[in-house]
Amino acid sequence: MNKKAELTFDHVALRVRDIEKSVEWYQEKLNAKVGYQDETWAMLLIGGTKIALVIEGQHPSHIAFKVSKPDALPCRVEDASEHRDGTQFFCAGDPDGNTIEWVYYPPELEREISNDPIDW
Amino acid sequence: MNKKAELTFDHVALRVRDIEKSVEWYQEKLNAKVGYQDETWAMLLIGGTKIALVIEGQHPSHIAFKVSKPDALPCRVEDASEHRDGTQFFCAGDPDGNTIEWVYYPPELEREISNDPIDW
Repeated sequence: MNKKAELTFDHVALRVRDIEKSVEWYQEKLNAKVGYQDETWAMLLIGGTKIALVIEGQHPSHIAFKVSKPDALPCRVEDASEHRDGTQFFCAGDPDGNTIEWVYYPPELEREISNDPIDW
Repeated sequence: MNKKAELTFDHVALRVRDIEKSVEWYQEKLNAKVGYQDETWAMLLIGGTKIALVIEGQHPSHIAFKVSKPDALPCRVEDASEHRDGTQFFCAGDPDGNTIEWVYYPPELEREISNDPIDW
């Protein structure tokens, strides 16, 4: 990857069958706070990090790293995808098929997230 | 869990078949730094977080959270296990079988790790 771009750990995503049931489990066992939740996915804050829960048909389980520049996504610009929240991302499998996501938050979105009124 | 104990994200562990090959992939694609490596597991630092690689027969893929007190491990003391490095841990599956690990670093080990000469 582009060694001049900064790379920071962003989140882990886990496949679950029932978002509501799993959110309750993570709240009870790990004091999770809920940043977002619907029937297809949830974003939790646990121990200072973001853990996403996703149902089948959405993303696979993965680890995501944030890149500081869009050209640090390890793909051509036209091959990056866009999440529902406007972030750009690219996924690849490691040699054993573990999914790694590189994600770029456009500056306006980064500001919006840091001003998020949710008390994480 | 014990709500008075602090819980902090510690690491993600991924199952791989060939530690050496996978370490090279993570170094090339994600600028991973190697904290420890043998033929059965490796501990990488990527984007400010620890990513462990483990072969089959060791631990399953998991997410680990550090607890600040041993009694915050969600099990009886006698049910906790000990890693090769002396840390105490307990694993449980979430409702879908995703493995979560709670890990406690005894103070002497915490000091040793923070004095680790490896330039992470």
